[in-house]
Amino acid sequence: MPVMRLGYARLRVEDLEAAKRHYAETLGMRVTAEGGGRIQLKGWDEFDHHSVQLEEGGAGLAGLGYKCQSADDLALYEDRARAFGVTVERMSKGDHVAVGDGLRVTLPSEQTIELYCEMEYVGTDVGLLNPEIRPRHTRGVDVPRLDHAAITAPEPADVERFFCEVLGFRASERLVSDPGEAKLLASWLYCGQTMHDIAVLPGPPGKLSHIAFWVEDWHAILNAGDIFAMDGTPVEVGPSRHGIGRALTSYFFDPSGNRNEVQTGSYRTYADTPTVTWTADQLAKGVFYIQREFSEGFLTGVT
Amino acid sequence: MPVMRLGYARLRVEDLEAAKRHYAETLGMRVTAEGGGRIQLKGWDEFDHHSVQLEEGGAGLAGLGYKCQSADDLALYEDRARAFGVTVERMSKGDHVAVGDGLRVTLPSEQTIELYCEMEYVGTDVGLLNPEIRPRHTRGVDVPRLDHAAITAPEPADVERFFCEVLGFRASERLVSDPGEAKLLASWLYCGQTMHDIAVLPGPPGKLSHIAFWVEDWHAILNAGDIFAMDGTPVEVGPSRHGIGRALTSYFFDPSGNRNEVQTGSYRTYADTPTVTWTADQLAKGVFYIQREFSEGFLTGVT
Amino acid sequence: MPVMRLGYARLRVEDLEAAKRHYAETLGMRVTAEGGGRIQLKGWDEFDHHSVQLEEGGAGLAGLGYKCQSADDLALYEDRARAFGVTVERMSKGDHVAVGDGLRVTLPSEQTIELYCEMEYVGTDVGLLNPEIRPRHTRGVDVPRLDHAAITAPEPADVERFFCEVLGFRASERLVSDPGEAKLLASWLYCGQTMHDIAVLPGPPGKLSHIAFWVEDWHAILNAGDIFAMDGTPVEVGPSRHGIGRALTSYFFDPSGNRNEVQTGSYRTYADTPTVTWTADQLAKGVFYIQREFSEGFLTGVT
Amino acid sequence: MPVMRLGYARLRVEDLEAAKRHYAETLGMRVTAEGGGRIQLKGWDEFDHHSVQLEEGGAGLAGLGYKCQSADDLALYEDRARAFGVTVERMSKGDHVAVGDGLRVTLPSEQTIELYCEMEYVGTDVGLLNPEIRPRHTRGVDVPRLDHAAITAPEPADVERFFCEVLGFRASERLVSDPGEAKLLASWLYCGQTMHDIAVLPGPPGKLSHIAFWVEDWHAILNAGDIFAMDGTPVEVGPSRHGIGRALTSYFFDPSGNRNEVQTGSYRTYADTPTVTWTADQLAKGVFYIQREFSEGFLTGVT
Repeated sequence: MPVMRLGYARLRVEDLEAAKRHYAETLGMRVTAEGGGRIQLKGWDEFDHHSVQLEEGGAGLAGLGYKCQSADDLALYEDRARAFGVTVERMSKGDHVAVGDGLRVTLPSEQTIELYCEMEYVGTDVGLLNPEIRPRHTRGVDVPRLDHAAITAPEPADVERFFCEVLGFRASERLVSDPGEAKLLASWLYCGQTMHDIAVLPGPPGKLSHIAFWVEDWHAILNAGDIFAMDGTPVEVGPSRHGIGRALTSYFFDPSGNRNEVQTGSYRTYADTPTVTWTADQLAKGVFYIQREFSEGFLTGVT
Repeated sequence: MPVMRLGYARLRVEDLEAAKRHYAETLGMRVTAEGGGRIQLKGWDEFDHHSVQLEEGGAGLAGLGYKCQSADDLALYEDRARAFGVTVERMSKGDHVAVGDGLRVTLPSEQTIELYCEMEYVGTDVGLLNPEIRPRHTRGVDVPRLDHAAITAPEPADVERFFCEVLGFRASERLVSDPGEAKLLASWLYCGQTMHDIAVLPGPPGKLSHIAFWVEDWHAILNAGDIFAMDGTPVEVGPSRHGIGRALTSYFFDPSGNRNEVQTGSYRTYADTPTVTWTADQLAKGVFYIQREFSEGFLTGVT
Repeated sequence: MPVMRLGYARLRVEDLEAAKRHYAETLGMRVTAEGGGRIQLKGWDEFDHHSVQLEEGGAGLAGLGYKCQSADDLALYEDRARAFGVTVERMSKGDHVAVGDGLRVTLPSEQTIELYCEMEYVGTDVGLLNPEIRPRHTRGVDVPRLDHAAITAPEPADVERFFCEVLGFRASERLVSDPGEAKLLASWLYCGQTMHDIAVLPGPPGKLSHIAFWVEDWHAILNAGDIFAMDGTPVEVGPSRHGIGRALTSYFFDPSGNRNEVQTGSYRTYADTPTVTWTADQLAKGVFYIQREFSEGFLTGVT
Repeated sequence: MPVMRLGYARLRVEDLEAAKRHYAETLGMRVTAEGGGRIQLKGWDEFDHHSVQLEEGGAGLAGLGYKCQSADDLALYEDRARAFGVTVERMSKGDHVAVGDGLRVTLPSEQTIELYCEMEYVGTDVGLLNPEIRPRHTRGVDVPRLDHAAITAPEPADVERFFCEVLGFRASERLVSDPGEAKLLASWLYCGQTMHDIAVLPGPPGKLSHIAFWVEDWHAILNAGDIFAMDGTPVEVGPSRHGIGRALTSYFFDPSGNRNEVQTGSYRTYADTPTVTWTADQLAKGVFYIQREFSEGFLTGVT
């Protein structure tokens, strides 16, 4: 069965309290646990224990957790990962707060991904019996859920191949140097029905471009921007649209410089959705459809 | 693997030309073929040949087609359906325009569903190379895609069991007479990541409550209503929100009285999403969250 | 100079605490004063002391206050009102909390309107120096301001004539029995640049149809409906659009049964804007453009 | 009586056909007349003959027309303008297509403004009898109306004083070097109920910063951006929000480099609305609230 979703991102942050203010007050996530130099948080509409884990010290990506459907699936992925030739380790229940047994895989681009099928259930603010459509009182941007991550790789094609061959992801969109030639520059890969659950962008190994939270609609993108202005959150790119994936978006930074995104819109994918190809000469329009330009730092800035 | 989606709805319509005006001009679907008393149409963002087939004569549901991932899946579903005890027939390529081999199953509630894994590929208006985010010129409501269908059943529990046991669907939300007791009144079932791909509502056998088209956002629900006013389309329920599924919605009728819906919002489901329970005493709020009331006809009106 | 705006509505309410919960917590108005069986409230974006005054006892309209630009204007209106033949009294500073000297006029349809040019200044939450675009934390619907009132009259033409001849209002839209004939059924009148500052609808003398609060946009109309559902506020008409005035709207009731509206959209008027005419046969589309129908109670329900 | 509105902008354009494509196809204005090296256009919701006049040759502002209520008002403005000390000439009916008699005033900052009270009436696409809420078919961005203009001045204070003393405008917001000191850097001035009908920005004499069209809401700002991407229109600033005036905005250029804006949101002004003060140290947030930065060219780019 397909991998279910990006379950969590583990981020390194310089100042735990400053990071907590950002994720809990500005983004409005719920703190579900803290201690030992770590804080776990979830979006209001997420059932599992957490989708973000802040880890004191530095900046950047400590790991991405993808939740799978069963132990059988984990076993299959383990076999395939070993055959693929990447480093695979067993992860034990309790290695991470609230997370069950699983695998720890080092991608060809050196980031760590963790595959698991159990996380402590917390539930949402609205419950499961005659629920309201959302919590009565909003908290900052009030992000409902984590959506995807974007990592960088010196050779995106290797990472794309890993996600497709080992984990059964598919590419919704691909950026190539030119249409006739096969040099892959970037790939957007999905395991569910969104346009992507992971993006692989060109860049150094081991690095994070951004993690993205899903928000309701275009109005929510504006509301997020207004909150960022009032909270003094650095905004890299204001309300905008991607040509690639059609998504509505805004980019901003947590206090340690880890890039965040709020995203909505985009389209629904299926197992038979044909792959879209972008060519490098149309990159600016692909990245920011309306402005058709972006700063150099948007590509090179990673943590 | 899971069933992919509701691929098409075959609707009986009294007047083919009037129906074509409704689906092609008001809803803005693309006519991909017509002839022999039938018209095939697709939403602008759908790749397959059609998602609606209009069939001259009467009103109501001729059949629902669910697209599956492979012939192996079809074989599995066939075995399970026979074991379940419903009537199953083979469907051959060409039985329906542009549709490949498959199965024809009669539900416990007497509607016909067709399972297939191939349909002629047409593609979208924007193409697959550096695509624009939508067609430059809009056409009426310009529905991007078919979303789900809702059928009625004297015993919804039997139909829910069929979709879960035979086709691997899961219930996102269920309406029961009261929380302690197991009498199922209605069920919303998903195979992908939307809140439902089929709804089973209480009512007579063989009937359709509605087919629903997905639209972009709350603004698109308003735009649809404005178009309906200008085109004289009968609107049963204007812009509203469901408590069940949280979706934003509006209901209206095609010229033969087949109920249509435009829908957006709602939430994302996964294989581990817990099921929400609604109790009958909260039905009004569940159906229309803001108004908390609906006309009798909304429940009893079927074709 | 033109009258500036509907400055306040004085509403009679049965239970002052219940009314306060509605206006302060559900609608999110700021309580600026209370005592002596009265509560004053303002929207977050209003500068003056209050725009709603709740008065204990009964239900219905105690008075509407229209703010004028100068004492000279008041003197002119007084002369014209006497010439018109309605009852006019002087209103003294302190007759109403925070309101300066003015006039009290009994309309031909028996409602009281108060004309004044001074009210105690309170200011908004965001201040006047480098202001944020709104308060950081929202409160319920968080209505920014009062917009208009709608009253009923046995002879709307008399009331329209009063507002035009005495106060210099103009009709943006008028409902007539048929286009060839002059029988006026209802009139929407403006003094500023909105589509109306007062509506005169057919009905009994001395009664209120509704007071309306302006909200930001179509999304705010939805948000209001969601809040109403969570707070148990009775909603008469959910998110909808008027044909008359094009406005986006929802109607609901305070705990005493006084009808409220949230409204946005519509168009901008000027002194040279031509008047739109609606004929009675198109009333349903004029009132609710999308649904093209409304309950009898919507017309007959007044307080 | 107050000046009614910015009635028209006369723009010099290099290539009349290219400009026509921009204003008529991308912005969706209606061409109401053309000939003699000039093209007149109006937004779909404007009643008067035109709101934009394109004049072949060069780029920049040929003149701004403000519509007044009466010949008496014109006479008053003429007296005041002469007393103020600016150059005033009579403008005769027919000097400009469809425009009646009026005045031509040279501002202290050297731009020409024309004051008139009559323009040929054309009416809108939806008419005045039981009108639809908009035209059934949209055309590009489909701007309903011209909103305001922004001009540059070496001494903004002189131009502010002209608009206030001669034409009765009021400042809704002012930018000063610091709050204690009176050096005015920019002023936003209104004659109606919008936040501004003219903006005076620091810069060279005789120049235009931009003309702005009003659009419906935040969704329309996005839709405009999408259209610009599809039509290849250069976008300077994508969907954004001003701190000054709170307005939602996007800036783009016509083919001659004249800056255009689409704008919505903002707040309602009255004759008693207190003036907001911005200080230069908060300029970036005032100009673009969410991003809190802008390119140098945004200030220096004029035509």
